[in-house]
Amino acid sequence: MALSDDVRIALDGKWRHVREQSRKELADLDLAYDHDLTLDEARARVLEQMKKLVPTGIPAAGFRVESGGTGDPGMAVTGIEMLAQFDLSLMVKAGVQWGLFGGAIENLGTERHHKAYIPGLINLDILGCFAMTETGHGSDVQSLETTATYDLATEEFVINSPTPSSRKDYIGGAAAHAQVAAVFAQLITKGENHGVHCFVVPLRDDQGNDLPGITTSDDFHKGGLGAVDNGRIVFDHVRVPRENLLNRYGQVDQGGTYSSPIESSNARFFTMLGTLIRGRISVGGSASAATEVALSIAGRYALKRRQFGPEPGNEILLMDYRMHQRRLLPLIARSYAYRFAQNQLVARMDTVQSAEEPPPPHQQRELESRAAGLKAAQTWHATRAIQEAREACGGAGYLAENRLTTLKGDTDVFTTFEGDNHVLFQLVAKELLTSYAQEVGGLDPVGLVRFAAGTVADVVKERTAASQLIQRLIDARPGRSDDNHDLLDRGTQLSLFEDREEHVLETAARRLRRANSGDKAEAFAVFNAAQDHVIRAGRVHIERVVLEAFTAGIARTESPEAQELLRDVCSLYALTSIEEDLAWFMGHNRLADTRAKTVTSLVNELLEKLRPHTLTLIEGFGVPVGTLNAAMLDD
Amino acid sequence: MALSDDVRIALDGKWRHVREQSRKELADLDLAYDHDLTLDEARARVLEQMKKLVPTGIPAAGFRVESGGTGDPGMAVTGIEMLAQFDLSLMVKAGVQWGLFGGAIENLGTERHHKAYIPGLINLDILGCFAMTETGHGSDVQSLETTATYDLATEEFVINSPTPSSRKDYIGGAAAHAQVAAVFAQLITKGENHGVHCFVVPLRDDQGNDLPGITTSDDFHKGGLGAVDNGRIVFDHVRVPRENLLNRYGQVDQGGTYSSPIESSNARFFTMLGTLIRGRISVGGSASAATEVALSIAGRYALKRRQFGPEPGNEILLMDYRMHQRRLLPLIARSYAYRFAQNQLVARMDTVQSAEEPPPPHQQRELESRAAGLKAAQTWHATRAIQEAREACGGAGYLAENRLTTLKGDTDVFTTFEGDNHVLFQLVAKELLTSYAQEVGGLDPVGLVRFAAGTVADVVKERTAASQLIQRLIDARPGRSDDNHDLLDRGTQLSLFEDREEHVLETAARRLRRANSGDKAEAFAVFNAAQDHVIRAGRVHIERVVLEAFTAGIARTESPEAQELLRDVCSLYALTSIEEDLAWFMGHNRLADTRAKTVTSLVNELLEKLRPHTLTLIEGFGVPVGTLNAAMLDD
Repeated sequence: MALSDDVRIALDGKWRHVREQSRKELADLDLAYDHDLTLDEARARVLEQMKKLVPTGIPAAGFRVESGGTGDPGMAVTGIEMLAQFDLSLMVKAGVQWGLFGGAIENLGTERHHKAYIPGLINLDILGCFAMTETGHGSDVQSLETTATYDLATEEFVINSPTPSSRKDYIGGAAAHAQVAAVFAQLITKGENHGVHCFVVPLRDDQGNDLPGITTSDDFHKGGLGAVDNGRIVFDHVRVPRENLLNRYGQVDQGGTYSSPIESSNARFFTMLGTLIRGRISVGGSASAATEVALSIAGRYALKRRQFGPEPGNEILLMDYRMHQRRLLPLIARSYAYRFAQNQLVARMDTVQSAEEPPPPHQQRELESRAAGLKAAQTWHATRAIQEAREACGGAGYLAENRLTTLKGDTDVFTTFEGDNHVLFQLVAKELLTSYAQEVGGLDPVGLVRFAAGTVADVVKERTAASQLIQRLIDARPGRSDDNHDLLDRGTQLSLFEDREEHVLETAARRLRRANSGDKAEAFAVFNAAQDHVIRAGRVHIERVVLEAFTAGIARTESPEAQELLRDVCSLYALTSIEEDLAWFMGHNRLADTRAKTVTSLVNELLEKLRPHTLTLIEGFGVPVGTLNAAMLDD
Repeated sequence: MALSDDVRIALDGKWRHVREQSRKELADLDLAYDHDLTLDEARARVLEQMKKLVPTGIPAAGFRVESGGTGDPGMAVTGIEMLAQFDLSLMVKAGVQWGLFGGAIENLGTERHHKAYIPGLINLDILGCFAMTETGHGSDVQSLETTATYDLATEEFVINSPTPSSRKDYIGGAAAHAQVAAVFAQLITKGENHGVHCFVVPLRDDQGNDLPGITTSDDFHKGGLGAVDNGRIVFDHVRVPRENLLNRYGQVDQGGTYSSPIESSNARFFTMLGTLIRGRISVGGSASAATEVALSIAGRYALKRRQFGPEPGNEILLMDYRMHQRRLLPLIARSYAYRFAQNQLVARMDTVQSAEEPPPPHQQRELESRAAGLKAAQTWHATRAIQEAREACGGAGYLAENRLTTLKGDTDVFTTFEGDNHVLFQLVAKELLTSYAQEVGGLDPVGLVRFAAGTVADVVKERTAASQLIQRLIDARPGRSDDNHDLLDRGTQLSLFEDREEHVLETAARRLRRANSGDKAEAFAVFNAAQDHVIRAGRVHIERVVLEAFTAGIARTESPEAQELLRDVCSLYALTSIEEDLAWFMGHNRLADTRAKTVTSLVNELLEKLRPHTLTLIEGFGVPVGTLNAAMLDD
């Protein structure tokens, strides 16, 4: 077996069978995006494509057997991710229908909702949308303005958009296809607001006309995702039966009395959101899949395109230029790192969601935090890497027929949806800075300050505690060598990452603790002055998590040759990460000046060492050449 | 007069009258891009828009009075740049017709060509294109494969595409509109190749059909610039009269004998390219204009959008978050810096091109180097800043109706065309590393090594010599203060930038000199190992040039209040530049650890100080609200 097969198997992870199946089945379905279609035509086409996905079994995998599915969450997420290799409009449409809308019904609803909706939404008899975001509120979901007021007289909820900013917006499916919406709204009964809950609200009749009280409109053209019918919904006192409340975490009885298994309204809200974790995992994974496609295109182009050279007629392959290696190989290494981290995350999610019992809160929230942080890291990497891939292919990279600009435009919103990346890193930091044992706080800055004020340094220590394998490597790290080649040692790298995280977290906590948390204005001011520091804490935490996942992934790799290659790729990831943050490592006495200067030469050594393996690394991504769909690679 | 007016006047520079005229006249012309049009419709529309530009006088300004123009190069470049505020497809179409095609006729042709083409191309009776790039060769123009072979028998040139890679590609106008092309090809006569020259070649008949021997085709959809009809041209032994050679720098007589006023074929080639400098200047300026539009949109949105806050109902403006200030204000400061640098460049270009006599070679090449480097810096800034502006507006930023994604897609190719940015920075470095007095070398790496081997450290010193004003500030810089506030002193900043440039250049030269320039393979290997270092030399040179231009621009500003504000903006540019390169300043003992740590807190101080002036700074860009064309700013 070729080395690239061994590498691909390592990268494919636990749901390799889903990847293999998708590589074959999806390639036959004519899924490539067509820029010549009008909005309406593109939307109609993607709906037809979705119908072809039903028989693959991927849609059913996301639902429990009791609900009408096949109960394989790992397959569901991996399958969505594979769609991203083919077309991101299709991936988003599928994600909205089966992941977001279906996920809301499955996780927030109870048996009656499962029976009524899940078989139909799996086979597309019921087309749904996920109406959470409003024009006025995206990341701050607790501040949504749409109301669902219980009317005792008719035993109905009245769904209403009280202000212009309460209009639901950017909702995939709302502009055209969705017949029904999972609507997030403030539940009000007996004059009391019990916070955001989710309601099933029919939107359109069989002819596709808005139902009474519903006004949908179209977001029209976007920066990408041309086949996704994003739109807006305004509710004018729309009545739905009491039973349309997805009532797993909150119930209103006929008499209008509210009850919930979770007392704290904050805890309830975050528990509900937590069940929807697959959305973030799918977006992060899809961003990585799209990045792998882009790097495969740019990498293969660099292995065939020649330009300049020592003399006329002796032109050099782009990939043989040091600068081009510098541009592409570290991005490829980072994509490898994220793939291992994503595989680990999907496996944990699968374990948690396949278990009979709900996980302990601590485990659930660690999973959520990791999903949030990894989504932010992967989507920013996508933005940066696809941009670089486009530029690395010059004018050819700008033609739609070579796909890179489509990948760039389609993935661009990934840094925003399923949570703005800055807010997500803030959330990661908050989870690290506050004690899991305490009452769940909101996402508001003051809440963060309040909790940070209550924590002790030990909590930070505990949060960053490493696994046995990692600790063993750290303990076994060599002393500093004269040629600084010890920086290539994994234990040394892991220790640098861990050390940085602890320091950034501790100093962030110290700054936040300065505030008198009783004074909200002061607490906000203290938070605000430290905001970049807090976000940085989330970011360096994820860098550590990713390096550890890469390390663990190598340990699980069977082929010794593949292991050896992956070790160099992992070092390239680690050292370019350190290089990007070199001023910090120097300024905090983690790397002395001479040692710091070695980082760049070690990176260059690795580039030289990995250059001959460029094609192997690209093939390791497992995107078949036919799937790349870039005209310039044809001849 | 409001402070923002004073700031805008400072930024508008010498061709303020053109900017003021354009702000009024262009706003009435309905130039906004329409995403609902098909390719054909969009292309037809942009051609109609171009016709409306003729009466503005901007097209005629680019040509000498003797040729049929009005002889105002500064106005021509400023006018094109103003188009970029409205629509970049239009800017590019105008740039191709009047800048590239017109510029080739004007600068490479002689009187007979001026008479035959210039009046007609100004008023659009003649539609042209600029056929330089080939599928196989973009940046390396000297390696173009298209041939123009003189046929003694018929006194014609035979234009031919001998290979698939010699196909002209990405040529604006080639897919549909262009009737005639300025074709760059290897001039061969009497069996000898005299290098790349430019020929006028008719492409289409009056019905728009390809002429015999010409095969045009379409590049179709791209990452942006939807109304520009980029396409391909293949020549199959197309015959044009001997007179169609643009013969200012090279002539073939009836008998087939070649002659040129410039003996060296390298020198001739670069002289010809040098006359086309306005293309790069226009692209850099347009990138900056588009960036100013994007930052105006994101900045104004951040001054109206609220999210989260210390308590419910008390939400905070995005612009009041430290992280949001961190994201936008340094980009605004950098845009200010580039605007002053661009104004200085345009003024120098205008002086050189308006003079009776051609400039001394040294001055011409410094102008070219600056145009190249500033184009690279401005276009990369555009890519980064427009991306950040999009993300800073969240989901709203992703809708085409808010324009940011269109700006992003349209400007994306700017880092590639008119010279790939990496190649341009390499060119800047080469000009710095080699002596202007020597024979002109090629763009090939080995040439660079050869010349670097011949230079002495003094040349580097001379190249970086500062003007009187700058030297005075550097000499007057204070000693290091305890609170490190001396880092806010302009002289200190200038000295840090100058010092870095000298060091990077000297060490780059030292590395290149190690090669035995006689051995081409070795010379290439040495160059390749140092390529990132060389490119970095170009980059830090331009950062110094830009800081000096900002400094000079402030000195020329009349209003003391505007001066004061601009001084803080300039410091924000300087300190965030230093912050991004902090590891270098620390590792090379230019900033000790404690001093380095102050940089970030000084940046934060400046953000706090500039926050109240956000709107003033946006208004200073001089993009009227009506021109922003972003739906989310309407209500």
